[in-house]
Amino acid sequence: MARIAFIGGTGPEGIGLAIRFAKSGNAVFVGSRTEERAAEAVGQVTAAVPDGEIYGGFNVEGAEKAEFVFITVPYAGHTAVLQELEEAIGDKIVVDTVVPMVFGEDGPTPAPPEAGSAAEEAQNLLPKAKVVSAFHHLDAKALQRLDTPMQGDVVVCSDHKTAKKKVMGLVEEIEYVRALDGGGLANSKITEAITVLLIHINKIYKAHSGVRITGV
Amino acid sequence: MARIAFIGGTGPEGIGLAIRFAKSGNAVFVGSRTEERAAEAVGQVTAAVPDGEIYGGFNVEGAEKAEFVFITVPYAGHTAVLQELEEAIGDKIVVDTVVPMVFGEDGPTPAPPEAGSAAEEAQNLLPKAKVVSAFHHLDAKALQRLDTPMQGDVVVCSDHKTAKKKVMGLVEEIEYVRALDGGGLANSKITEAITVLLIHINKIYKAHSGVRITGV
Repeated sequence: MARIAFIGGTGPEGIGLAIRFAKSGNAVFVGSRTEERAAEAVGQVTAAVPDGEIYGGFNVEGAEKAEFVFITVPYAGHTAVLQELEEAIGDKIVVDTVVPMVFGEDGPTPAPPEAGSAAEEAQNLLPKAKVVSAFHHLDAKALQRLDTPMQGDVVVCSDHKTAKKKVMGLVEEIEYVRALDGGGLANSKITEAITVLLIHINKIYKAHSGVRITGV
Repeated sequence: MARIAFIGGTGPEGIGLAIRFAKSGNAVFVGSRTEERAAEAVGQVTAAVPDGEIYGGFNVEGAEKAEFVFITVPYAGHTAVLQELEEAIGDKIVVDTVVPMVFGEDGPTPAPPEAGSAAEEAQNLLPKAKVVSAFHHLDAKALQRLDTPMQGDVVVCSDHKTAKKKVMGLVEEIEYVRALDGGGLANSKITEAITVLLIHINKIYKAHSGVRITGV
């Protein structure tokens, strides 16, 4: 059992992951900038997992209490939230799920920051933390429906091998989901971009798509 | 039955695709900068598909004769070969399979050109042609082994809808392989980068990996 905080966890991805990880027996904390939104999200997670160990409150409280700090904010809030939480996070494992993209006429386009990817930017902003990039390709709506088995792989990238292994273990707590070692954190620029492709495919096929790596 | 030329088709990907498309009844032309290398590659394709319609020779001859012009050169030769073949290609369908990357200490990294991707660069260099980006994720060795069923999807991107549909039809001539519409040509920067991730995964797992989009 782990203590997992979701920073900006009141969006669909944060709530979906909190539901899955509460279901598999972890203590989850849904963090927000406001106590009201956190309480509302806790209500949603509790409705899905009535016997779960579910908390909520300000982001900083979650970052302080958790062993795994998941970043589930929209990219627009990425830098500010990490700067704000640097001290609370310290040398913890940070799981960055964020996808930087811009929306244009033809749909979204990857918009990686100067650092190369959101995850590398996080590592630069939090030099003491162990940043792991993961969970970009699990559909948020599917995550929220516990009666629907998930499909697809989670590709996990990090320069911290022990942290990467721990996060890969967490991934596989979600039924039918497989964790795949995607190499170093620099590969996160690729896994983040894949999400943009999936959004296009979702629109073209009216689907909730994911990725599976074949041949492994 | 289509006439398909592989420009720089003497490498593993070109030979693998030529074998598969000769097998499915198309006339294939393996193009090269030298007649000797073309003849050698024709020998390899013919050994795999003895009753196939298989030709070879200079790249320009293939580009002139074919309906589909596949670009299967290493990225280093991408610009030069397209400039050289612009006239021969005219307004044909160009299938760009090229992945721009650089190799460093930690393995390969995507190295997209100014245009955003190899395929967009091709479209810029060949404004009259209909450039379609595809076939980045089928393992070259697996393509060459006709007794091994392929697995995985081919994500196809283009701004030319009719050409994209035709190429998606070609893709599905390869047994068990599915074509997926990946949207406009700009998304090729993502499909090209995915190949780099697969190379990392191949090294980590000693695998011949590919991609399957789930939920579609």
